[in-house]
Amino acid sequence: MFRLINVDGRAALQQGGDWYELATLAGDPSLADPMVAVARHEELSALQERCGAATPTGPLAAVTLGPPVPRPAQVFGIGLNYLDHAGESGMELPSVPMVFTKFPSCIAGPTATVPLSGGSVDWEVEIVAVIGHEATGVAVSDAWDVLAGLTLGQDISDRAVQLADQPPQFSMGKSFGAYGPIGPGIVPVDAFEDR
Amino acid sequence: MFRLINVDGRAALQQGGDWYELATLAGDPSLADPMVAVARHEELSALQERCGAATPTGPLAAVTLGPPVPRPAQVFGIGLNYLDHAGESGMELPSVPMVFTKFPSCIAGPTATVPLSGGSVDWEVEIVAVIGHEATGVAVSDAWDVLAGLTLGQDISDRAVQLADQPPQFSMGKSFGAYGPIGPGIVPVDAFEDR
Repeated sequence: MFRLINVDGRAALQQGGDWYELATLAGDPSLADPMVAVARHEELSALQERCGAATPTGPLAAVTLGPPVPRPAQVFGIGLNYLDHAGESGMELPSVPMVFTKFPSCIAGPTATVPLSGGSVDWEVEIVAVIGHEATGVAVSDAWDVLAGLTLGQDISDRAVQLADQPPQFSMGKSFGAYGPIGPGIVPVDAFEDR
Repeated sequence: MFRLINVDGRAALQQGGDWYELATLAGDPSLADPMVAVARHEELSALQERCGAATPTGPLAAVTLGPPVPRPAQVFGIGLNYLDHAGESGMELPSVPMVFTKFPSCIAGPTATVPLSGGSVDWEVEIVAVIGHEATGVAVSDAWDVLAGLTLGQDISDRAVQLADQPPQFSMGKSFGAYGPIGPGIVPVDAFEDR
């Protein structure tokens, strides 16, 4: 199963302590773009199998990873879906999923430095579902099928900005530069037995 | 001054009742992409002057216009900035600009058919400011300088969806397919004396 990463803006696969440039591994220059790699996620597990016989591009320890999805077309954040967090926020549980955005310009790599926008910055750890292709009206039972895979992220929020307006619109306070670090890698949903 | 439109996904200029394919007018195939044309807005007024001596690509009456910005990286909506609308919404005026998003997948052409998502769909006419290049920390006095131009749009909202969660996050109810028609054309900010 693949583990897709972003090294200096180039799509790569991770195996052990090494990374393998995806375009080289595939013999296909178009796969250098991480967004193309995400869109073609169905090809990645077969390419991952080539890593064993291939020469690594280099050691992971020598590089800084970028966000595995550097330019998402849209980012959907689901708010207050964790009981303890709703409690600490002093907010009621929503009866339908509360959807906000993090503006795509906040997306950063997994070890990015995050400049703080003020004195009330908070963070939450998130599971990030990477949507692999355009989809609409998807049945709950088919939802996993539209995912390229899963990664991790942080939802960093300037609470003062987030709650400044009435009713509060969450997105701006959650979208300062680097307030959306994601990664390090995307793994396919097949990696999880209990989904 | 230019008037940038989108004809069948290709950037074009409008003059009188005709349209002129921008790539042909400029002798530059890369200007066929409306997003490239927006980014290179500083070249457009000079290209518009070529229309007089050029052969029109065709009459406007024969085409359906697409959105002049078909794939915006981000869409910022400013809520409750119009006194009468705040009054009819029964909401307080925000003390800071209330920023929500319309997810980019809702962007449509100026004469698009809008399938209604339910029985509580509302509309608002909007001035759409097209941001021409990445900018951050812009002073109020410099704000006009980052715009490629202005166009019009509608902010269509499914009020039941918009107000379903608590606190209401506006974006989903405003982002059904074609809930963001924009156009017909982008004009430069120079077209407005009283800005």
